[in-house]
Amino acid sequence: MGTTAATDADTTAETKTAGVVGGSGFAGGELLRLLDGHPNFELVQATSREYAGKSIGGVHPNLRGRELRFSEPAELEPVDVLFTATPHGVTMEHVDEYLDAADLLVDLSADFRLATEGQYDEWYDGHSAPAYLDVAEYALPELNRENLQDADIIASGGCNATATLLGLKPLADAGVLDGAHVVVDVKVGSSEGGAGGGAASSHAERSGVVRPYAPTGHRHEAEIEQWLGLSVSFTCHAVDMVRGASATCHVFPDGPVSKKELWTAYRGAYEAEPFVRLVAGGSGSYRYPEPKAVAGTNYADVGFELDPSNERIVVFSAIDNVMKGSAGQAVHAANVALGFAETAGLEFAGLHPVGSP
Amino acid sequence: MGTTAATDADTTAETKTAGVVGGSGFAGGELLRLLDGHPNFELVQATSREYAGKSIGGVHPNLRGRELRFSEPAELEPVDVLFTATPHGVTMEHVDEYLDAADLLVDLSADFRLATEGQYDEWYDGHSAPAYLDVAEYALPELNRENLQDADIIASGGCNATATLLGLKPLADAGVLDGAHVVVDVKVGSSEGGAGGGAASSHAERSGVVRPYAPTGHRHEAEIEQWLGLSVSFTCHAVDMVRGASATCHVFPDGPVSKKELWTAYRGAYEAEPFVRLVAGGSGSYRYPEPKAVAGTNYADVGFELDPSNERIVVFSAIDNVMKGSAGQAVHAANVALGFAETAGLEFAGLHPVGSP
Amino acid sequence: MGTTAATDADTTAETKTAGVVGGSGFAGGELLRLLDGHPNFELVQATSREYAGKSIGGVHPNLRGRELRFSEPAELEPVDVLFTATPHGVTMEHVDEYLDAADLLVDLSADFRLATEGQYDEWYDGHSAPAYLDVAEYALPELNRENLQDADIIASGGCNATATLLGLKPLADAGVLDGAHVVVDVKVGSSEGGAGGGAASSHAERSGVVRPYAPTGHRHEAEIEQWLGLSVSFTCHAVDMVRGASATCHVFPDGPVSKKELWTAYRGAYEAEPFVRLVAGGSGSYRYPEPKAVAGTNYADVGFELDPSNERIVVFSAIDNVMKGSAGQAVHAANVALGFAETAGLEFAGLHPVGSP
Amino acid sequence: MGTTAATDADTTAETKTAGVVGGSGFAGGELLRLLDGHPNFELVQATSREYAGKSIGGVHPNLRGRELRFSEPAELEPVDVLFTATPHGVTMEHVDEYLDAADLLVDLSADFRLATEGQYDEWYDGHSAPAYLDVAEYALPELNRENLQDADIIASGGCNATATLLGLKPLADAGVLDGAHVVVDVKVGSSEGGAGGGAASSHAERSGVVRPYAPTGHRHEAEIEQWLGLSVSFTCHAVDMVRGASATCHVFPDGPVSKKELWTAYRGAYEAEPFVRLVAGGSGSYRYPEPKAVAGTNYADVGFELDPSNERIVVFSAIDNVMKGSAGQAVHAANVALGFAETAGLEFAGLHPVGSP
Repeated sequence: MGTTAATDADTTAETKTAGVVGGSGFAGGELLRLLDGHPNFELVQATSREYAGKSIGGVHPNLRGRELRFSEPAELEPVDVLFTATPHGVTMEHVDEYLDAADLLVDLSADFRLATEGQYDEWYDGHSAPAYLDVAEYALPELNRENLQDADIIASGGCNATATLLGLKPLADAGVLDGAHVVVDVKVGSSEGGAGGGAASSHAERSGVVRPYAPTGHRHEAEIEQWLGLSVSFTCHAVDMVRGASATCHVFPDGPVSKKELWTAYRGAYEAEPFVRLVAGGSGSYRYPEPKAVAGTNYADVGFELDPSNERIVVFSAIDNVMKGSAGQAVHAANVALGFAETAGLEFAGLHPVGSP
Repeated sequence: MGTTAATDADTTAETKTAGVVGGSGFAGGELLRLLDGHPNFELVQATSREYAGKSIGGVHPNLRGRELRFSEPAELEPVDVLFTATPHGVTMEHVDEYLDAADLLVDLSADFRLATEGQYDEWYDGHSAPAYLDVAEYALPELNRENLQDADIIASGGCNATATLLGLKPLADAGVLDGAHVVVDVKVGSSEGGAGGGAASSHAERSGVVRPYAPTGHRHEAEIEQWLGLSVSFTCHAVDMVRGASATCHVFPDGPVSKKELWTAYRGAYEAEPFVRLVAGGSGSYRYPEPKAVAGTNYADVGFELDPSNERIVVFSAIDNVMKGSAGQAVHAANVALGFAETAGLEFAGLHPVGSP
Repeated sequence: MGTTAATDADTTAETKTAGVVGGSGFAGGELLRLLDGHPNFELVQATSREYAGKSIGGVHPNLRGRELRFSEPAELEPVDVLFTATPHGVTMEHVDEYLDAADLLVDLSADFRLATEGQYDEWYDGHSAPAYLDVAEYALPELNRENLQDADIIASGGCNATATLLGLKPLADAGVLDGAHVVVDVKVGSSEGGAGGGAASSHAERSGVVRPYAPTGHRHEAEIEQWLGLSVSFTCHAVDMVRGASATCHVFPDGPVSKKELWTAYRGAYEAEPFVRLVAGGSGSYRYPEPKAVAGTNYADVGFELDPSNERIVVFSAIDNVMKGSAGQAVHAANVALGFAETAGLEFAGLHPVGSP
Repeated sequence: MGTTAATDADTTAETKTAGVVGGSGFAGGELLRLLDGHPNFELVQATSREYAGKSIGGVHPNLRGRELRFSEPAELEPVDVLFTATPHGVTMEHVDEYLDAADLLVDLSADFRLATEGQYDEWYDGHSAPAYLDVAEYALPELNRENLQDADIIASGGCNATATLLGLKPLADAGVLDGAHVVVDVKVGSSEGGAGGGAASSHAERSGVVRPYAPTGHRHEAEIEQWLGLSVSFTCHAVDMVRGASATCHVFPDGPVSKKELWTAYRGAYEAEPFVRLVAGGSGSYRYPEPKAVAGTNYADVGFELDPSNERIVVFSAIDNVMKGSAGQAVHAANVALGFAETAGLEFAGLHPVGSP
């Protein structure tokens, strides 16, 4: 489970400069917000092919009043840390250029998440810079904290994979998944589709949906399998929210498991983690993890229930896909890599009440 | 207020054939649904440049199982009635061709709503077939029933204009608007933007909005002025629903008006109308007109309240913009023109509960 | 699969009188709408303890203008068919009274869905009129059409059970479920919670949710097991829509199954069914069943996908919980029982576009 | 417009203790979040009659993990600042008790917003502690900054009044409202109704609404008139969002006004204000103020448009009703009163994208 969270890191650490490639998309905009408010980063550049010359607040209305303007992606400035929030395939094509410009590259795309060229051949369309696959470290600090600390390339995890992995990793580490049968049924918001638009994602067509997509063969299965060591039956549904990914994992273990064993596994995994909260039962309206309760934050809420009559464990995991599932995870990993306080820039607690955040 | 509604029309009237030009958009799809279920129409053709060859149910999931397929707009079949649901400018360009193909042309665009070429010069980009402006009759039966009965071209009204006109026409007819000052504040759903998509209308950007658009100078002002004889201060807002247009009209009359006079004006105007309901006060959750309560139907709910301290009348008017504001109005007008029962094919009562319909 | 649908039933059948007990709730209101527009029913009574004396349109705004007023439940009028839409436990307590008042009792609660007193002891709090359990017939015509035709009591199925059963029954009949492992992950709208309100179901708390509830031990499992002959692992989630229930069934059969075998099973089961549509693949935005596409209708859309890498069948089933999952199913079953056209009063095609219906 | 914002205030100011009476409601919960994260406050008590003994995170899921538990309202601890977020009438009843417990009382209810007992007789049900009306200062720093600095009681403004006043005050100060005619059409989210619930505010009934309420005679008119010196025609609508209040003000000035004069008035009023942003025109999706863009923040976005053909100014003003319209405004005012940095604890920038926040 990696080393302990550096919650007592030196908050007077020197400031690092940061740039964002692909700053007009949803993940890129979230990076701009987080870096703009981060005590240890100075945001010096944001690129956007489409909006070069426009102020970042003209695209992201929450950033109104900032002076920074988008620049052309070809005109990279040297920075300490470069975050890339570009479509799949761009970072692998430009990785040398990016590593020239920065000491640390944090990529939010899928380009460096998998370990081998063979996986890219199987799940994607191959890889154009396979030599760097060994260099890159997977971002999730809860899974890979110790390897982040001297990383040159950090690969931020996929949102659905993140929700799933945080729900299931403690079971894997406790041996509960050995020989188990796992179904993962995911519900996601419209921000997962990116800022582009298109008829199917128009408000009129997408409002109120429970829409199956990628019912089988979702690419995030590869990341999940890589970290859990087992294949899962994975199905995604679009539902009516903007931010959020919620994974319901139906686990059928090989033998009986008690509730106490589950609590031991989850508490052991997460009690020192600054961004994972165990939410299981209790009273009130919010008894299990749900994405509303973590919207805008870097938290992952994880909970579970035993179903004795079906010899089943039901695990619920909820994140904000733009934060813990993307930009927040990337900043968290950078904090770890650079020795900043892990929660620096990620302190927002979330809102109550909140609608479809 | 036109002649009385022909609620006792001959329901055994002979069947007419109908075609729809522009059947893949939202208004066109609604026409297909209404004509498919209409007792006096046989739907024989639906055109779509983009989806020619595809079944209509492949575009409109509520029409799954119908055998009709989209055909090319250039291959019009002769029909008794041709409904055109095309972007502004298409019908005026093809009007001769359409009138060759059909005895009655019912146009859902803005191309024939205004009376004079001068209005089109002022509010649009001119008009290419001004000779037909005198031929066309404005669709709203509540305003123009008697002229529909032998019409060759019917111009279905704009959605926002329809909501506004139904709210204010009884006041105009009663003389209450003489010298009055009128503000119209409209709230509309995303279906008004059409089926196209685009970043601003994506689910992620448009969910949860209260977004001013066309804060001044909305083209529907021209229709409103044409039928009320006065100019209104008109502002539109996009809100989070798919179907619906709600007009709140703040009327400042020249002299005092009593609640009794208002009831007399509205009851006189609408008591014989099959699709207008007066909703003012009462108890429960639904005390004033609201678009939810008419979603999917051809009803317009109209109500009002007196504000003595401000010498103001507040008029509320709610319609489904795709129905009473477009396709339903067109079918209603065609029913009048052809002597069918006015409510034929338009009997759906709406749903309760219903969300953002 | 019962006898063939009587789509060519005598539509000139004599009219029957109908009453609704519990007409102010959501299912009761939907019954009022359906019976009011039904060609073979005359709606003569609607009861409501809370709203006795008020017009039905004062509670259900879609029924504005109807003259019928709610009456006290104690003052039942004799009718041909009595529909009861009351909370669990009421019908079993009053069953003798109801059967005195009507020739046919159609109950929308859970009181007569299960076959034996023992099941009620296990899943509910026992049963106070167990002698009638043998008399009652389960409503779903697709499963039990032939037994409905001379029924005295019809028990309308639960919404989640209906979605699940329609998705899985063809597989059970084809033997695919023998020895299979089945996970059912359901997403439902807020109308399932009824018309009552409460803090957790307030708009502010429930908007935008993906909220697990009844993660294990849901009572509808009993109905599902009764008709499929196997236990399923069932978990429900509240999502942001008002109407709709969507069941995603992850089926792990005992041996290999081909896509062709699946098509054969589903086509055989449903090709003559007037209210079940197979939706699997194709192009466009609506490639699988989703509740939006059936909102307001009595359709169930059912589809499936094979996941060869996990030896899994994914079945999607979507209904409107207030219609096919409750009032629509009840009217459909009454149509069968009384020899009316099966689709009588249930012809509404649904809307496109439509939001969170 | 008060004194200049103390943006360079001493951020190393000593810490003050704070308590919240009425901490389980929406405004109370927001106070808990803000005070918990505030650099100059130590949150020492939160009261709740209903939840006494429960952890604050059990009611407000965004506050999971905090150790503080609700206590009984009768057991007040002495604090430097007491924030009261109770229903109307409670603070005036307990004001002596509250002032005994704290040096500064910040009340979020309407109890001390108006200046005279006569206003409470006219708009509310009188006042039980009128002697304190002269003591209390209205919270909005943009209107009343200089008087807040030695206040004993601060009355946080009403949400709709806040949106309206921020939109119109610059026009009033510039004389543009002299003799003007003003219509204010407001759209609000469901959090305005509070945490209680009830059938009309249930998700099923309130989703997708555009629902007029308080169409005339809204109590916030009194606050508006008190600060603008003129009466406005005010109408509210509930729309489908959780947080947010949006005021569209249609202003008909007595004589001609140029766009330049408007810019001068608004820039002069707000250029030094840390929480008011001018948003008027530009390109992109967010060209005017809208509540989404300020959700979760203490910003008010204000913009305007000239409508020369109607001699009208349209002013748009958007806030988060729980923040700038309630708890955020209260903390801002307390910051001013105590000499803290005005933005302390209120730095959250908001999210993009965001749904119905």
